Amino acid sequence: MKRRKFLTAAIGGGVAGLAAPAVATSSPTIRWRLGSNAPQSLDTIYGTAKIMAGLVDRATNGQFKIEVFAEGEIVPAGGILDAVQNATLEMGHTASTFYIGKDVRLAFDTALPFGLTARQQIAWMYYGGGQALMQEVFDDYNIRVAPGGNSGAQMGGWFRKEVASLDDIKGLKMRIGGLSSQVLARLGAIPQQIPPGEIYPALEKGAIDAAEWIGPHDDEKLGLYKVAKYYYYPGFWEGNTQTSFYINKDKWASLPAEYQAILESAMGHAGQTMTAKYDADNPLALRRLLQSGAVLKAFPRDVLEAGYKTAFELYDEIAEKNPGFKKIYESWREFRSNALFWWPVAELSFEGFSASEARKKS
Amino acid sequence: MKRRKFLTAAIGGGVAGLAAPAVATSSPTIRWRLGSNAPQSLDTIYGTAKIMAGLVDRATNGQFKIEVFAEGEIVPAGGILDAVQNATLEMGHTASTFYIGKDVRLAFDTALPFGLTARQQIAWMYYGGGQALMQEVFDDYNIRVAPGGNSGAQMGGWFRKEVASLDDIKGLKMRIGGLSSQVLARLGAIPQQIPPGEIYPALEKGAIDAAEWIGPHDDEKLGLYKVAKYYYYPGFWEGNTQTSFYINKDKWASLPAEYQAILESAMGHAGQTMTAKYDADNPLALRRLLQSGAVLKAFPRDVLEAGYKTAFELYDEIAEKNPGFKKIYESWREFRSNALFWWPVAELSFEGFSASEARKKS
Repeated sequence: MKRRKFLTAAIGGGVAGLAAPAVATSSPTIRWRLGSNAPQSLDTIYGTAKIMAGLVDRATNGQFKIEVFAEGEIVPAGGILDAVQNATLEMGHTASTFYIGKDVRLAFDTALPFGLTARQQIAWMYYGGGQALMQEVFDDYNIRVAPGGNSGAQMGGWFRKEVASLDDIKGLKMRIGGLSSQVLARLGAIPQQIPPGEIYPALEKGAIDAAEWIGPHDDEKLGLYKVAKYYYYPGFWEGNTQTSFYINKDKWASLPAEYQAILESAMGHAGQTMTAKYDADNPLALRRLLQSGAVLKAFPRDVLEAGYKTAFELYDEIAEKNPGFKKIYESWREFRSNALFWWPVAELSFEGFSASEARKKS
Repeated sequence: MKRRKFLTAAIGGGVAGLAAPAVATSSPTIRWRLGSNAPQSLDTIYGTAKIMAGLVDRATNGQFKIEVFAEGEIVPAGGILDAVQNATLEMGHTASTFYIGKDVRLAFDTALPFGLTARQQIAWMYYGGGQALMQEVFDDYNIRVAPGGNSGAQMGGWFRKEVASLDDIKGLKMRIGGLSSQVLARLGAIPQQIPPGEIYPALEKGAIDAAEWIGPHDDEKLGLYKVAKYYYYPGFWEGNTQTSFYINKDKWASLPAEYQAILESAMGHAGQTMTAKYDADNPLALRRLLQSGAVLKAFPRDVLEAGYKTAFELYDEIAEKNPGFKKIYESWREFRSNALFWWPVAELSFEGFSASEARKKS
């Protein structure tokens, strides 16, 4: 309908149409708004939506423009799902884990503690049935969903004191959210919900003992090493963190098929650049952090083992009560089991050997 | 020029134009041919070019069609670079390592023994300067180049006898190509160039002792486990294997800017699906191979250590003689060094722990 109107308008443009480039004169002019869960300072995440929008703009000669708004400019990060569902925004770019209070199935669209890696997540999405399962979930919210880039494995965060064993987790006031906070709580920690801007003063005053954020590139900007110097790894609750593009389904349906295909490619390609940027930037940021006094520490084995056991107990419990969660969990768990059978063979043996040889030289 | 002609033709279409979708009536009709280095049986690699072509087709409402030809249908794998350079083909999809006899700098566009992983390769390309450096190389061949998908870490191949130590490499007649064959030759092996279809009979007759191919999903089709049951890992010469899209630069320049952007997104997105498909299919194929009698073996440490030392000696020697190689090598080596400093921290500690816990359960 809308499309035909634009077509008619374009053809009615007459002589003016002859002077303009081919596509510009006949494709519908569309203006969309996308809400990102990231402030502009999270340049990699925010930047992924900008890259996507730029590709769509160029592919349509400026006829289909998607304006990207940072967190809070239109809605806060917590409101993106609702805003796309009710078409306040045509699009969103966010981590679905923000909304697991509403629907715990959404966790699979981002990451579960001790879950998949970035490569495994996208493989599950595209070729393991994950994408179809997630779309079933998002159908309930009138949203079309697509993978929107991944951070890779994150760090365990900043701790004021060393964690020598599982005992040191007990009573620890830690800034952490989502399913991860439920796992940490079962280990004895006291999870805290604190917005990013308030993490630094809370750690400085000792109101909290620890805080997790993302990885070296993003963490560096918060300067947490000055107030909590122990930098723990791995962020076992986020072996990957997938972000997602949300599109209101009515708005999607109103697009010409060409624009849908253009958007699909642009989302996929832009998402791919997110991991690449993190992988390029994180090493340099980590070097700088260590030079500034951050102290790198591995979580003790008993913390990881207890976390692992606790995480899967939690999933089993949720699955027992929630058939929708169970359906996705079974697909995800089988995919993960197969992936972990193969991964150590070629990939991890190669990576582990290369890392150990490189360490010898340095 | 061409574009204006099509524009005029479309507008001259009159009433017929009204019935067709917007873009179809005014965007230029373009038909390109792409030569793949893969036969159709290599469904993942061949399929990536098909996915790319499908995205472009849909994004232009069928106005820009790229027909994909399998290896040998127009030119053999070894002839793709030349064919795109001289515009026999508008596009190619291949591993640049095929052409290192012509120009050894091309190795960086695919993989070097003990080089980067799939994630590190794409990070180097997009955000580590790799893409610009590779484009400089391809400018000499009048080709625009873009990453075209990655296999991930490959397997070390099929061996008739066990490799207990480096001594067993000496005198080994092994099917292997590219820079890898130079490293293996320095370790005492006798590299053989054999087309895929002839690997099975050569192993069966004992004309060769070992053969490397790709990974479980592709290797399974050749049935090599029947004639050489020891399946070694890792393929240290291919910690990743990047394929590339080639576009003749004059043909690229003749495209409307919109089609260029559409092609760029489609290549990026399609490339991303290649690794995802391998990551989903390889675990299942490996399980089947082991059930069929394949015996999984890790290369002995002394083979890896000698290979590592030899590989970097070789690069240093080439760099000394070839300033073009040296320029890329320095960027690549620094990127790799940074990546290997960061990788063990969050990513490998997470992946290694998850793999070890999963092994306990199975």
